[in-house]
Amino acid sequence: MAEGIADLGAPLVERAMAETGLPRARLEGERARTVGQLRLFADLVRSGAWIRATIDLAQHKRQPLPRPDLRRRHVAIGPVAVFGASNFPLAFSVAGGDTAAALAAGCPVVVKGHPAHPGTGELVARAVRAAVATGGLPEGTFSYLPGPSTDLGSALVADPRIKAVGFTGSRAGGLALMRVAAGRPEPIPVYAEMSAVNPVVLLPGALRARSASLAAGFVQSLTLGAGQFCTNPGLLIGIAGSDLDAFAEAAAAAIRESVPHTMLTPDIRDRFAHAVAALAARPGVTVAARGAAAGPGGAPACLLRTEARHVLADPALADEMFGPAALLVAAADMAEVTRLLESLGGQLTATLHLDRADEHLAAGLVPLLARKAGRILANGWPTGVEVAPAMVHGGPFPATSDGRSSSVGTLAIERFLRPVCYQDLPDALLPPPLRPDNPWHLARRIDGVLDPQPGR
Amino acid sequence: MAEGIADLGAPLVERAMAETGLPRARLEGERARTVGQLRLFADLVRSGAWIRATIDLAQHKRQPLPRPDLRRRHVAIGPVAVFGASNFPLAFSVAGGDTAAALAAGCPVVVKGHPAHPGTGELVARAVRAAVATGGLPEGTFSYLPGPSTDLGSALVADPRIKAVGFTGSRAGGLALMRVAAGRPEPIPVYAEMSAVNPVVLLPGALRARSASLAAGFVQSLTLGAGQFCTNPGLLIGIAGSDLDAFAEAAAAAIRESVPHTMLTPDIRDRFAHAVAALAARPGVTVAARGAAAGPGGAPACLLRTEARHVLADPALADEMFGPAALLVAAADMAEVTRLLESLGGQLTATLHLDRADEHLAAGLVPLLARKAGRILANGWPTGVEVAPAMVHGGPFPATSDGRSSSVGTLAIERFLRPVCYQDLPDALLPPPLRPDNPWHLARRIDGVLDPQPGR
Repeated sequence: MAEGIADLGAPLVERAMAETGLPRARLEGERARTVGQLRLFADLVRSGAWIRATIDLAQHKRQPLPRPDLRRRHVAIGPVAVFGASNFPLAFSVAGGDTAAALAAGCPVVVKGHPAHPGTGELVARAVRAAVATGGLPEGTFSYLPGPSTDLGSALVADPRIKAVGFTGSRAGGLALMRVAAGRPEPIPVYAEMSAVNPVVLLPGALRARSASLAAGFVQSLTLGAGQFCTNPGLLIGIAGSDLDAFAEAAAAAIRESVPHTMLTPDIRDRFAHAVAALAARPGVTVAARGAAAGPGGAPACLLRTEARHVLADPALADEMFGPAALLVAAADMAEVTRLLESLGGQLTATLHLDRADEHLAAGLVPLLARKAGRILANGWPTGVEVAPAMVHGGPFPATSDGRSSSVGTLAIERFLRPVCYQDLPDALLPPPLRPDNPWHLARRIDGVLDPQPGR
Repeated sequence: MAEGIADLGAPLVERAMAETGLPRARLEGERARTVGQLRLFADLVRSGAWIRATIDLAQHKRQPLPRPDLRRRHVAIGPVAVFGASNFPLAFSVAGGDTAAALAAGCPVVVKGHPAHPGTGELVARAVRAAVATGGLPEGTFSYLPGPSTDLGSALVADPRIKAVGFTGSRAGGLALMRVAAGRPEPIPVYAEMSAVNPVVLLPGALRARSASLAAGFVQSLTLGAGQFCTNPGLLIGIAGSDLDAFAEAAAAAIRESVPHTMLTPDIRDRFAHAVAALAARPGVTVAARGAAAGPGGAPACLLRTEARHVLADPALADEMFGPAALLVAAADMAEVTRLLESLGGQLTATLHLDRADEHLAAGLVPLLARKAGRILANGWPTGVEVAPAMVHGGPFPATSDGRSSSVGTLAIERFLRPVCYQDLPDALLPPPLRPDNPWHLARRIDGVLDPQPGR
């Protein structure tokens, strides 16, 4: 599949550019990530680590009762419905992370294509189906359902053959699919990655030492891809004072100079403009800076500002605006910063900018942030999600429907697995990962001890 | 906590006997299991394996972009509501498996006690609270809410501070809690272990070789604890013929000789009697044998018989009867056995009785059973659930609400954990399991390679 997608060459990138407005370099990078994800999961499948082979040997003479022979492995949960995202036409779409993780787990996948990039989806789906055929996989391994209708998506999730759902998109869309899944005669898990404002705390020492470079880094992260990232830094928090003002002025200047980019769809652009206007109209909120006027489809970046007491009084001020806009919140002191963070719902990420002198303040916040977010960053920006074993792209509700997992990195395979135990089965009936002769040479946990280097 | 419960001595067992009707030996065994579970989870906590410490080291010179330092651990999901089961007043109740797993994960626990054994629950709850106090744990680590009302349970699950639910009980009760949890502003996971008939397939060679001993083993498993086990063998399947008839006759004789035991509550006894009478009244179903007439509170064991075509026409014939009753189903051939198994909903267990000559038949069934059940047994009986790392006590819906986990054994801790990733944090801000100096001496996966023997 990875080879087939890479072999699509420039026409795939150009089709995606035409359908999404995203620039070539970004899409070439996203294609590399998509291909890399598929190869990463292929390596994971070959390693067998996901099987989690666990063996408790029989103890025939144990008193008062003998212990049976118990052998556990993890198996595919069943067919998975995957909903492509608008903002990642490759990496979170037809052959994106959810598809790669579900296929790696051994689950057939049915993709509901996103209507914002139908041609891109079709090209990738054909490459995947060709790989299914040439690889000799069962015909039903991968199916692609293009179409704009939300009824199609609901029908897919309601289908009794579907056993799990992967979704990346809006909160409204995710909540709707959660309701369908919970209302089935057989409820099924939904892994919906929905929304976040990804709070960034600018601690006093960091603000004092480098407000200008912080502002530059912030605006670069905010405006990347027209701000259309689930990890966009949408909420900045600092203690009121001249250092925060200096940051705000530098950020405002960079925002005014930012070049507006075309957004993914007219609907997304309209909703963004509406969200910014609505926030700007709220009492206590001011517009600190707005980017240059945008052409058709484009969206000017925007920095808004308020005080923490307003957000504490009306938590909706901290709702996500999907696009290049952020709210800068001035707090009276660290106690108010803490109260503000405590008031937030679940987040994909939370970021601290700190100097060495801030470490004692940061130490008080890290445990709070670990309750709120799936990933905690220091001195970085949350956009850019590394595809790696230690990555967590997830977080408590409403960032996702299910904070117990990650949609990026190898951990994602666990969303589509369930455990099965085999008790006292004759060797010939055991699946290969659990046979005494260990024909797949897996690292297995036997009577609680990991055998990491099984003889070959 | 384990010591405190053991120290309650005979008064605990005698209180449980009075409240449940279960015999002393059974309750002493259950107490040993309860104490053992708590110690097993204590060992697991000390091992740190549940933290799953995973580190991807920074690659500052990687092209086109440097890789950040990423460190992942698993943390407690938050306060857990646990609902005690009627049929295990100790091992699946106040300080049972769910409580042990949730506390081990670091979650505060609020137990809704089962109204069928209020005194037993109170004694155990006091022992646990005393251990919380003497161990210097936070006051809110453990709370106990006794009371018969289902409103109390619903209010507990609806409370926004609760982040997960563990339940063992009826399908109606589990489904009700699932609805409450899914309808919250913040939906939360429910781990409900609900119902199963635990199909047992008697393959031809085994039937021919040992129908009498199979019948004896079956009736012993069926009537154990008055059949009040979620793993009770409620559905037996064999190919029609003289060997199956011989099994049925031997089983019927043993059923007739079986001694009726007092059931847990009058309500459970009445529902059992109703379920048996309703099944016996269905077309095509006959009563093969009934145990001796029972005294007050008691329930006679019952073996019913039908043909596979009747169950295929009306799957409700295979619904659980909670108590010492089973349905023996005669199939025309192996194809019909397969169709019958395929028609069943998710199960906690599935069992094959086989001789060497049956292995080719069994090999065709094992993959099907792995889709249907959490545990597959050969030549045993499903009652008796070993508390061990490889155990899976769970299974696809409707056996449980969530087939991705186990409620028995160390795997259960994962139900109450979620992953958190720390990106580029200064060493001083990292939690101990992820610090470079590895102060807890944990086995950690670093750049994909497990370091199983960290230097001490």
